[in-house]
Amino acid sequence: MRLVLDAMGGDHAPGAPVEGGVLFARAHPDHEVVLVGDTAKVTPLLGKGLPPSNLRIHHASEVVEMDDHASTAFRRKRDSSLRVGFELVRDGHADALVSAGNSGAVMAGGLLTLGRLPGVERPAIAALFPALKGGGRSLLLDAGANVDCRPSHLAQFAVLGEAYVRLRLGVARPRVGVLSNGEEPSKGTPLTREASELLRQSDLDFAGYVEGKDLFSGDVQVVVTDGFTGNVVLKTSEGVGMGVVGLLRQAIEKRGGLSEKLGALLLQPALAGLRRMVDYAEYGGAPLLGLRGVGIVAHGRSSPRAIHNALGAALATAQAGLQEELTRCIANAAAWLPTHQRGKKGTDEAVSD
Amino acid sequence: MRLVLDAMGGDHAPGAPVEGGVLFARAHPDHEVVLVGDTAKVTPLLGKGLPPSNLRIHHASEVVEMDDHASTAFRRKRDSSLRVGFELVRDGHADALVSAGNSGAVMAGGLLTLGRLPGVERPAIAALFPALKGGGRSLLLDAGANVDCRPSHLAQFAVLGEAYVRLRLGVARPRVGVLSNGEEPSKGTPLTREASELLRQSDLDFAGYVEGKDLFSGDVQVVVTDGFTGNVVLKTSEGVGMGVVGLLRQAIEKRGGLSEKLGALLLQPALAGLRRMVDYAEYGGAPLLGLRGVGIVAHGRSSPRAIHNALGAALATAQAGLQEELTRCIANAAAWLPTHQRGKKGTDEAVSD
Repeated sequence: MRLVLDAMGGDHAPGAPVEGGVLFARAHPDHEVVLVGDTAKVTPLLGKGLPPSNLRIHHASEVVEMDDHASTAFRRKRDSSLRVGFELVRDGHADALVSAGNSGAVMAGGLLTLGRLPGVERPAIAALFPALKGGGRSLLLDAGANVDCRPSHLAQFAVLGEAYVRLRLGVARPRVGVLSNGEEPSKGTPLTREASELLRQSDLDFAGYVEGKDLFSGDVQVVVTDGFTGNVVLKTSEGVGMGVVGLLRQAIEKRGGLSEKLGALLLQPALAGLRRMVDYAEYGGAPLLGLRGVGIVAHGRSSPRAIHNALGAALATAQAGLQEELTRCIANAAAWLPTHQRGKKGTDEAVSD
Repeated sequence: MRLVLDAMGGDHAPGAPVEGGVLFARAHPDHEVVLVGDTAKVTPLLGKGLPPSNLRIHHASEVVEMDDHASTAFRRKRDSSLRVGFELVRDGHADALVSAGNSGAVMAGGLLTLGRLPGVERPAIAALFPALKGGGRSLLLDAGANVDCRPSHLAQFAVLGEAYVRLRLGVARPRVGVLSNGEEPSKGTPLTREASELLRQSDLDFAGYVEGKDLFSGDVQVVVTDGFTGNVVLKTSEGVGMGVVGLLRQAIEKRGGLSEKLGALLLQPALAGLRRMVDYAEYGGAPLLGLRGVGIVAHGRSSPRAIHNALGAALATAQAGLQEELTRCIANAAAWLPTHQRGKKGTDEAVSD
C-alpha cells in the first residue's frame, strides 16, 4: 500500500508529520509513505542518516492554512500539499491520505477531488470515543462536516458508521442511536424524529434516541447527529477531559501533602493507561466516510506518534476493503431509504468552514 | 423566607426530599420549609422525634411522574405536589420552589402557574459547570427547556444568565459567549450567527463564539445555546465525567498492584475534593430563569444533601433580589433587542417534554 501524508497540515507541521511519517515507514517496510509538501522545508527535517527507502517526498509549493476558508483555499491553491495529495489518491497513485490540517479543508478537498461514493449524499467526519463496554470504542458522526442536515443524511451516517465499526472495530452487529435530548420518542427535533423513523425501517440494530452519556457507556457503538451538534459534543468532551485532569491537579496541589504526591506517583502507570485510552493520539484520527477514497483527519495538535497511528489507521482501512463495503451498504439501504435529488451544488453545500 | 419543597419529585422521592428538607430546616431556624406532598407518605418519613418547628407539610394528593408528558400532566393533575407548590409561590404564600422532578414538567408548571417576567420570551433552565478559572463556575443556558429557539431567545438567555452570574456567583462583569462549532465568525448556524449579531450590539461583555471546552476553562462565565444542544452538552459532560472515573477504576483494577491500591488510597482526599467540585449535588440545582418567581430544579437523582443545597440556592436567590434584577435587565435590553410578538400559545411552545 502507498499512503499519502500531508506534510504541511497541522499545528506542528511540517515537523510532526515528517517525524511521524519516518516512524511509520521504518516500522512498515512493506508499505510506502509519500510526504507531500515543500521539499525545501521537508528535506532538512529528515535528519542526517539515510531516510527509509520506502519514504519519498512529493513537492507541493502551497499550504492550506488552519484559518483559511476551506473550500475557497482548496480551489485557489492549486499546488497545495492537500490538493496534490488528494490528486495522487484520485489518480490511483496512492491508496489513502492522512492530514492533520483543518478538518473542514480536508473534507472540502476530498469532496472536490475524490467526490462521493455512489449514492452518498453527504460524507461525514467520524470521531472515535472511548467507551467502557462494547469493544471500548464508539463512533460519533457527523463530527463537523455538515452543519445543516436532512433526516436522510443522518440515516446515511448510520449506514456508513455501522459498516466502519463492523469492519474496523470488529463489532459483529453494531448498535446505532440518534443523539437527542432525552430517550423518550417525544423528545428531539423534527430532524431527529424523522431520522429515527427512517432508521426504524432499516435493517440496522437501531436503539432509538440516545444521550451524550451513551457515547461513553458503550451501550451503542454508532451515534449519529448533525455536524453542528457533533462538533459541539466533540469539543465538550475534550473540555471535560482536560477539565477533570486540571481539577485533579488543582486538588492535589491545594492539599499539597506528601501523601498526595506519593499517591499521584504510585498511580502514575494507571493514569498513563487512562491517558492512552482517552488520548486522541492513540485513535488514529477521524475517518472521512463516504468519499471515493480513504481519507483520515488527524488532530491539529498531532504529535509524531499520533501521525504514526493515523497512518496505521489509514493502512488498515485501505486493507479492510471499507470502500467496497460502504458502497454495498449504501446501495442496500436504498430499499428503506428514499433517495433525494442531488443538486449540482451538493459539493459546496456539504462543506462547512 | 418560606421555601416550598416538592416532596414527591425525583428518583428517590419522597425519602430524599423529606430528609433534605428536614436537614435544611434544622440548619436554618430563621426560615421555613413547606413540604408539599401526600401527607400519608410524607409524615412517616419525618422520623420519631419532633420535626423542626419551622417545617410543615402541605397536602397534595397527586404526583407528576418522571415519564409523564410534562404540560399535559401538569394541567390534568390539579392536585399534584408540583402544581400546589407553584400555586403557593404564585399566591405569595412562599418565596421559592425546589423540585427534583422532571425538569420539563417543573418548567411547564412554572410557566402555567407563575408565568413569565415582563418582556421575557422564553424562560430557560440554567446549568452550572465547574470551571478552572473565573470564579470556578460557568453557566450554560438553555439546558433543555426550549428545543426550538429564535435568535432573540438566545440573546435574552444571555441577559438572564449574565444577571444571575453577577448576583449569585459574584463575578463583576461576566463574559458571555454563544456556543458554536468553532470560534471563527464563519462557523455556526443561522441561529448562532443572528444571535451573535444581536449580542454584538448589546452592552454585555460579549466574547463571540465559544466551544464546548470553554465551559470548563472559565474564560467565559455565561454560554448560551438552544435547549436541544444545551441538553446534549449537559448529558455529554455527565457521561465524560462518569467515563473518566470508570476508566480510571478499570485501569487501576487491570494493573491491580499494591502500589495502585495504595496510590488510590493516598489520593482519596484529593479525589473526594474533585468529586465535590464536579458533583451536581454541591451546586444547588439548576435555576429556572425568566419565570415570575424563583424556581430551582434539583437533579432527578438528588440525595438529601443535594436537596439541602438546592434549598440553600433557592434561599440565596430569593434574598439576592434576582427577580427584580432580571426584570430590570430585560427592560434595559429592549434598547438593542427587538421585541417579538408573543403568541397566545407561547406557554405551550416554550416547553419541550
